[in-house]
Amino acid sequence: MITVDDIVHIIQQEAGEDALRLSGAGEGDINEPIRFTVRTRIAWLVVNLGATMLSASVVGLFQGEIARFALLAALMPIVSALGGNAGTQTLAVVVRALATNQLTSSNTLRMLAREFQIALCNGGALGLVGAVGSYVILGNLQLSIVFAIAMVINSIVAGLVGVIVPVALDKANVDPAVSSAVFVTTATDVMGFFSFLGLASLWGLGG
Amino acid sequence: MITVDDIVHIIQQEAGEDALRLSGAGEGDINEPIRFTVRTRIAWLVVNLGATMLSASVVGLFQGEIARFALLAALMPIVSALGGNAGTQTLAVVVRALATNQLTSSNTLRMLAREFQIALCNGGALGLVGAVGSYVILGNLQLSIVFAIAMVINSIVAGLVGVIVPVALDKANVDPAVSSAVFVTTATDVMGFFSFLGLASLWGLGG
Repeated sequence: MITVDDIVHIIQQEAGEDALRLSGAGEGDINEPIRFTVRTRIAWLVVNLGATMLSASVVGLFQGEIARFALLAALMPIVSALGGNAGTQTLAVVVRALATNQLTSSNTLRMLAREFQIALCNGGALGLVGAVGSYVILGNLQLSIVFAIAMVINSIVAGLVGVIVPVALDKANVDPAVSSAVFVTTATDVMGFFSFLGLASLWGLGG
Repeated sequence: MITVDDIVHIIQQEAGEDALRLSGAGEGDINEPIRFTVRTRIAWLVVNLGATMLSASVVGLFQGEIARFALLAALMPIVSALGGNAGTQTLAVVVRALATNQLTSSNTLRMLAREFQIALCNGGALGLVGAVGSYVILGNLQLSIVFAIAMVINSIVAGLVGVIVPVALDKANVDPAVSSAVFVTTATDVMGFFSFLGLASLWGLGG
């Protein structure tokens, strides 16, 4: 006999396990010996450390610009964080659509087009807010324009990568719910830093 | 009659909905009009934009140091990202432990002590890897030591905040699964930047 209580219990467990797997926190047993927990969690932290070194090396390319104009270093985490958040939203939608068979090869292109439009709207709106806000606070028009354009670009990267990564992993028979996030946030970090610092460099900010 | 298929279907839906709520992506209906999706998602992106501006203003405090030593800007996202990942792991464990009533006021202190020890181990190990790696690549011993200490500090912040935030939200009858992440990652971003740039400044790096 399966009771409603059993179902509620399973659902709670499953939902919790999903968050645990996503974060690389293993089983999440709060009573296991600490050395087991340390070992489980560190693997995922090392993977992420490696991924972050990629984006750090992108920042390293623009040391000259940053040295001449240190405000770039203050604004660049905003661009990468917006991309990370937008990418995680797209990812959640796509992973669910894959799991419920709503997203198949027949409508993947439509999904890409849809996320592109959403990214354009949200990136545009937040870019505008960011540009106006940064102009009011910092008073550098050129910097604010570069900031806004980079936010639009990274929002679009987030939308596209948020569809392409889980679809590709699903095709390769890898569970997209577990492994997508690190690829998506690495892409949005790298592209966030690169688009913002690259545009700033092109336009002679910090030149 | 409840069939096994029904249960599997509910579990898949619930797990997906959890990821959707966590990311602020609403219902995740891939067929709703785009303007609805834009409106749902943008609210969460704006909240996160506000949170990121906090950490950006911390970086802004250290513009002088960054201008004199731009490598700081390349390493600081690694410190904040490690904290974000470690905090998310602790969060996943604590949210599950709260949902399954394994974590109560009687063992919260024990949980804090546990996460502190895990953070010390993982932060220490990754700090060591980071220090050796950055020394091999950049050859600046003082920078590598500051980098390692900041990683340990931020790892500990992540472990403590990852327990305190969801427990406090739960006490205030707010669903910790939905709202904890933005507080935890804001804390690890702010403390990651502050500890790394602050120590660098104290020790005269970029001075």
